[in-house]
Amino acid sequence: MKLADIGLIGLAVMGENLVMNMESKGFTVAVYNRSTEKVTNFVEGRAKGLNIIGTYSIEELCKSLKKPRKVMMMVKAGQPVDDFIEKIIPYLEEGDIIIDGGNSHFPDTIRRTAYVESKGLLYIGTGVSGGEEGALKGPSMMPGGSPKAWEAVKPIFQAICAKVEDGSPCCDWVGENGAGHFVKMVHNGIEYGDMQLICEAYQLMRDYLGMSNEEMYEVFSEWNKAELDSYLIEITRDILGYKDEKGEAVVDFILDTAGQKGTGKWTAIAALDEGTPLTLIGEAVFSRCLSAMKEERVAASKILSGPAVKFEGDKKAFIDDIRKALFAAKIVSYAQGYTLMRAAAKTYGWNLNYGGIALMWRGGCIIRSVFLGEIKKAYDKNPELTNLLLDPYFKAIIDDAQAGWRRVCAASVMSGIPVPAMTTALNYYDGYRTARLPANLLQAQRDYFGAHTYERTDCPRGEFYHTNWTGEGGNTSASTYVV
Amino acid sequence: MKLADIGLIGLAVMGENLVMNMESKGFTVAVYNRSTEKVTNFVEGRAKGLNIIGTYSIEELCKSLKKPRKVMMMVKAGQPVDDFIEKIIPYLEEGDIIIDGGNSHFPDTIRRTAYVESKGLLYIGTGVSGGEEGALKGPSMMPGGSPKAWEAVKPIFQAICAKVEDGSPCCDWVGENGAGHFVKMVHNGIEYGDMQLICEAYQLMRDYLGMSNEEMYEVFSEWNKAELDSYLIEITRDILGYKDEKGEAVVDFILDTAGQKGTGKWTAIAALDEGTPLTLIGEAVFSRCLSAMKEERVAASKILSGPAVKFEGDKKAFIDDIRKALFAAKIVSYAQGYTLMRAAAKTYGWNLNYGGIALMWRGGCIIRSVFLGEIKKAYDKNPELTNLLLDPYFKAIIDDAQAGWRRVCAASVMSGIPVPAMTTALNYYDGYRTARLPANLLQAQRDYFGAHTYERTDCPRGEFYHTNWTGEGGNTSASTYVV
Repeated sequence: MKLADIGLIGLAVMGENLVMNMESKGFTVAVYNRSTEKVTNFVEGRAKGLNIIGTYSIEELCKSLKKPRKVMMMVKAGQPVDDFIEKIIPYLEEGDIIIDGGNSHFPDTIRRTAYVESKGLLYIGTGVSGGEEGALKGPSMMPGGSPKAWEAVKPIFQAICAKVEDGSPCCDWVGENGAGHFVKMVHNGIEYGDMQLICEAYQLMRDYLGMSNEEMYEVFSEWNKAELDSYLIEITRDILGYKDEKGEAVVDFILDTAGQKGTGKWTAIAALDEGTPLTLIGEAVFSRCLSAMKEERVAASKILSGPAVKFEGDKKAFIDDIRKALFAAKIVSYAQGYTLMRAAAKTYGWNLNYGGIALMWRGGCIIRSVFLGEIKKAYDKNPELTNLLLDPYFKAIIDDAQAGWRRVCAASVMSGIPVPAMTTALNYYDGYRTARLPANLLQAQRDYFGAHTYERTDCPRGEFYHTNWTGEGGNTSASTYVV
Repeated sequence: MKLADIGLIGLAVMGENLVMNMESKGFTVAVYNRSTEKVTNFVEGRAKGLNIIGTYSIEELCKSLKKPRKVMMMVKAGQPVDDFIEKIIPYLEEGDIIIDGGNSHFPDTIRRTAYVESKGLLYIGTGVSGGEEGALKGPSMMPGGSPKAWEAVKPIFQAICAKVEDGSPCCDWVGENGAGHFVKMVHNGIEYGDMQLICEAYQLMRDYLGMSNEEMYEVFSEWNKAELDSYLIEITRDILGYKDEKGEAVVDFILDTAGQKGTGKWTAIAALDEGTPLTLIGEAVFSRCLSAMKEERVAASKILSGPAVKFEGDKKAFIDDIRKALFAAKIVSYAQGYTLMRAAAKTYGWNLNYGGIALMWRGGCIIRSVFLGEIKKAYDKNPELTNLLLDPYFKAIIDDAQAGWRRVCAASVMSGIPVPAMTTALNYYDGYRTARLPANLLQAQRDYFGAHTYERTDCPRGEFYHTNWTGEGGNTSASTYVV
């Protein structure tokens, strides 16, 4: 019997499509699914006549693999991953590789890498982005885990992943243990941000400018031809242009309650843990939560007052301002996301290649865009770039865009159209370029009520002072508040 | 030997002051500290001649207590609390009570309550707010844990806590296990928000209106006489009026890098976990993070461009707009905080008394204010109030304030002064009163790339639809993406 190059567990749509993709690149794939009728359906249906081997137990799956065995799980994140790891381990030998291609939380991947390595095996946790279509035609892949495993899976991953124009694969080694899933998580957070920004642009056009779907279709078509060229802008165009068999615009009938699967939330929590401002993604996550409070919002809309929403002025010019606001805010979002990755790399000891990450996201995944090519260039030029906003290319774009960006935010707050992501991005930009923030007052407050001490501008960093602001009580500072 | 009413571990400033407070109310207190020279210093110094018993071991401490024994820990949150619990347990009997008065994270308190109860003992985790002065003169106290413990500690807690004008104590039973520490955490998050809002008002006056400390002192003095009357406005006034022995305004020499101890972060994470928008506190936490990036900001301030900051107009009127912006945003912040408490109460099965919580915060603690009296009234009127914004009193304030609030946010984005908390509050207000948000597009995007399905406005909730947007691929929806 011919042995397979890789085994895959989990024949849902993502798993099936990945298998088809691998097979189409010349790999033989053994497949297994917990509900084994799916195996039968697959091998007798879509996979018929292809180099795809159906197996009906984990043991059979593992025995049908070439060494080092590579077993890839495409199962629901969480406990199922741990359960399958336990079931797979008995059938593997030293140097064999377990791969998790689901949306696992990076701390789990850190833990699992250590656990699987303790059994003499190797582990990879890889982000896979691009949805079902990406899985079939070429996803973006972000593998991390046991470095020794990379050489063995590289030929497969780099064959099946997306490629950019020059043929570079949108898959490269990210880093140790949870680095791949961390980067995938940040990708998803950025995806939340990108989607929220597009929604805000859409709402401004729909509710402030009173534009029709057809008009908005044209705007997104135009935007997709220039620097905003990206998958999400493209599908937004398609969605606005889509009519069902009755000739009705489906988008108008969709309920405005956003779902989420938690990876945006994880990204925001990671940023809070790292102490890194990730305000745009934070707002995007909270916006989804607010959208889900549909009944409350409908009730509140009848009670709470607001200004009259009325646009007066040059519509075409304002649409261009919206484009600028979207683009500038998007740059801020990526700047914040990259700052988070830098902080995490330091915390977890990962040696991340920031240009390489931009390249992985350049194609195949949901956030793929021309823009990411520019981010790659920025990090190629300066791998130590502190903040994307400081790169000359992006600085020039913001210089050009910021007047329009500000006009959009001002018009929104005056007219009562919420654009939380666009405005928080602007506030971050303005905060980041402010040499002296008002936190001196905040430190004074903390010292006043909690004797937390402060540093002084006229004294070296690391020297802490306390003022007895009231003239009462002792001079005990809070640093003595330890037993 | 006379037995003590309560024992206290941890003679840092908060612990010492609480002991002095208890003793002043007629209770005899036994004290212990890990570094026992602190015990000696205390009983021979500040506590000399008072009903305070120094002890030099946990055993001695516990043996000096009346039954049911009450041992209160004022130690650093985290491992030290668990360590002391282990050390205390052997010297207690059924019905005795261990109290944690530190800033413990509520999941720890949930866990510890169960653990201590499994030993036949009772547990209380109580928030204590008000800083060192509050501890001495009357803190706000938010106890939760084993309900059976409340009757025994109530006379002590309600004697030492702050009182409002009518004599009501700022301490009442919050709820089971971690409820007290949860409410204290939300208090701290709200404190972050209040401080950030004051800082934004200060920065607008300082950097946009070009006001001196003396002028700002006058403004905060005025504000403190009306509806913004609160401890934080009061100390801001004092700080702006404070000069050191050289006659220099100390606030001008304080470094603008805010510290934090993590409770604001916990609050934001709890909100993300509950799926509840808590945008203002989120921005307040991230603002502290941004302030801490001092060197980066100074460098960026020389590279990144912005508009000319120049105020033209009626300064007095704009100051009043700032007051309105601060007040309206503050209402939003409390509305968000209360929404979070309602969500958590549901998740953890707590029966929270929202008016009672406002009363606990009304005096003694850092966020104490006249305003909290109005929140108490709102929940007394309608304990089931969904959102504070819908209460007629607060609605009327927002109606009055919103034009000024909008002008401040618009001026800020146009002039480049970051006011993230004021603007995110406005965006939340506008989002909350928007019946139809743009999330219909977002759901379309999710269905397009991930077949996540959507609900329709013309179909019942709970029915999920998928559109084959591209006309390619299968009709498999993502709900089938399970093994």
